[in-house]
Amino acid sequence: MRRVAERALASAREGNQVVVVVSAMSGETNRLLALAHEMAAMPDARELDVIASTGEQVSSALVAIAIQQLGGAAESLLGHQVRIQTDGAYTKARIKAIDASRIEQAFAAGKIAVLAGFQGVDEHGNITTLGRGGSDTTAVAVAAAIGADVCEIYTDVDGVYTTDPNMCPSARKIGKISYDEMLELASLGAKVLQLRSVEIAKKYGVRVHVRTSFPKQIGNVDVYEEGTWVVGESSELEEIVVSGVAYDRGDARVLVVGATDAATTLPLLFQRIAEKNVSVDIIVKSPSVQDARSDITFTLPKTDLARIRGDIEAWAKELGASDVRYDADIAKISVVGLGMRSHAGVAARMFGILAKEGIAIDAVSTSEIKVSCIVAAKYTELAVRALHDGFGLHVRGSVAPPAPTA
Amino acid sequence: MRRVAERALASAREGNQVVVVVSAMSGETNRLLALAHEMAAMPDARELDVIASTGEQVSSALVAIAIQQLGGAAESLLGHQVRIQTDGAYTKARIKAIDASRIEQAFAAGKIAVLAGFQGVDEHGNITTLGRGGSDTTAVAVAAAIGADVCEIYTDVDGVYTTDPNMCPSARKIGKISYDEMLELASLGAKVLQLRSVEIAKKYGVRVHVRTSFPKQIGNVDVYEEGTWVVGESSELEEIVVSGVAYDRGDARVLVVGATDAATTLPLLFQRIAEKNVSVDIIVKSPSVQDARSDITFTLPKTDLARIRGDIEAWAKELGASDVRYDADIAKISVVGLGMRSHAGVAARMFGILAKEGIAIDAVSTSEIKVSCIVAAKYTELAVRALHDGFGLHVRGSVAPPAPTA
Repeated sequence: MRRVAERALASAREGNQVVVVVSAMSGETNRLLALAHEMAAMPDARELDVIASTGEQVSSALVAIAIQQLGGAAESLLGHQVRIQTDGAYTKARIKAIDASRIEQAFAAGKIAVLAGFQGVDEHGNITTLGRGGSDTTAVAVAAAIGADVCEIYTDVDGVYTTDPNMCPSARKIGKISYDEMLELASLGAKVLQLRSVEIAKKYGVRVHVRTSFPKQIGNVDVYEEGTWVVGESSELEEIVVSGVAYDRGDARVLVVGATDAATTLPLLFQRIAEKNVSVDIIVKSPSVQDARSDITFTLPKTDLARIRGDIEAWAKELGASDVRYDADIAKISVVGLGMRSHAGVAARMFGILAKEGIAIDAVSTSEIKVSCIVAAKYTELAVRALHDGFGLHVRGSVAPPAPTA
Repeated sequence: MRRVAERALASAREGNQVVVVVSAMSGETNRLLALAHEMAAMPDARELDVIASTGEQVSSALVAIAIQQLGGAAESLLGHQVRIQTDGAYTKARIKAIDASRIEQAFAAGKIAVLAGFQGVDEHGNITTLGRGGSDTTAVAVAAAIGADVCEIYTDVDGVYTTDPNMCPSARKIGKISYDEMLELASLGAKVLQLRSVEIAKKYGVRVHVRTSFPKQIGNVDVYEEGTWVVGESSELEEIVVSGVAYDRGDARVLVVGATDAATTLPLLFQRIAEKNVSVDIIVKSPSVQDARSDITFTLPKTDLARIRGDIEAWAKELGASDVRYDADIAKISVVGLGMRSHAGVAARMFGILAKEGIAIDAVSTSEIKVSCIVAAKYTELAVRALHDGFGLHVRGSVAPPAPTA
């Protein structure tokens, strides 16, 4: 916290108007949620947010005190004071509006505003929180609201990597990346930036700089190295086909066997899942032509599956399905890059690299700048390393590595 | 907390509309303040309140969850949600107004309102706290705002005693006591009820029931014994002369020697002390007739003395004083009772009892229903015991004990 205070004050003394957005102290959110879970196995979401938001509240006041202690002027601001207006979805609320006037008041008084991240209020003044990593989203949203020059995200890693360095030793730090690529690098990004924060950054063109909160000591001076800039598409970006390889072992796969193959089947099923506030990722529908029945495969977060498994089975029965099968032992491996738009054959090359390693592909999903494959979870590390080096990410600025021989 | 939840729910199921006002978990406020003091020796008062108020915030949500867990309906409410409006005196704010409508909304929805005590907001929405014991004040003020039948204060003692039972084994629990007596029994009351809460109770005629939060198990049933009722003056009250003996070792005495004896001297000195937000208790001015100089004695909380000692010396110099002396080793012993109004000689009897024990009296202050003496701190226990039994408080309902022989 003292380091945050020093850093904010140094920036203010360079003539900048500074908002610091703080998250809770390490372990604090978990400690608070554990208190609630001691009281009830399924504590009320509204009350969970009341409890969890205190972590950031304490941090904001402590950082304000730390800045004052260094001779600076600062004041803490909470979600209900700045009026971080959200919807009413407790524990995963979305910011709808921010009133910048309270922050501008602090600026006018020559103060650094130290804003409690992660929290907001709904239209009735109930406290809401934005989900894990929500302080990133607060920071980017505030940066947008006040038209900040830059939103610096200080974190425990030094930037965004071409893939997880713990899994692939040849992973490299990316200097600049586009909003869209960052969005697609979800499973890498989730460790560094909350997805929603990237969406807001893209929407409002906020320049985000993800960097380490641990400075290097050079002589007596703390030096903060550059991390990764997340920016709009422009000539700033290196012209590379694939910029990263991501993986996600948080999903499970559901197979609904032999559902009635009617036009209403898919809308009905996925409307109901959406009503349970569950995000489905990959959806594959395979018609079984002979008897107007089809199999439906989809993936969803394991935690959500536990919650709505009973519902899924009831809905499947309604749809005339003969069986529902589950597989939680899967991984989603994705390659991401703006260059895919202009370079054909990325999917084919990906399948080839995986095939060469003997990795079977269960399901595929593609977007304009991403190809994802579902594979057995045990192949995660092998698939990530093979794709990372197979697409030449271990070499700085490599554009088009030779296609592997399948 | 589960016991609080059970108790509230039992009352709601009897058909009552219930507001629970919670304080922080044991030790939590100290833990939070320690965090702030780690950051700075004299942390900013505004930020202290932001930090300290989280203790009650967490408690309110946990108790709401506990009630829900027992099958009841409940929701937490915070100072800024109910709009507990206070002045801007951080760490010791005073409640100015309460908007009962948010609580009535909870009632209308069939819910128990679980209100975070101790906290409020000033007119700008800054978070304030009401000082130690402030949750009592929140409770009484809310009871007044909603016109509650009773305000039950559950605490770790089972009522208000004729004096401190730890100091005087013959101390008895008082069944009913008037607001005024309770106010004068400050040092006893402070352990049970925040003074300000009694002032508000008196002003709005709130019936306060101070009782233990630890029930007796009778068979399988939790039985909460009656404690002490703090009520308006009426025939309900026993007709006794003295209802309690109080002591306070929290003050220090200041002697300003040889100040100019002008009409402006006292107003000037005590106006300045008041501006520092310090409550002075006993004031004695002894004119030294020969040279138009006077000595001024007053008492104030030790903690405040440490803070404004330098100021006092500067002011004393301005007033022409030759010296300032301090004594922190003092105690204020008080006897309190409505009966004093009609029974003459209570002060004289008090002096006699103390004289008989060889205890010198340094200074005296009286009100309509109280006599206080300043004595050396080492005599505290002896003075309390002698006065307690000397005024017959060890005997239930005693009216006029025989006057002691001096």
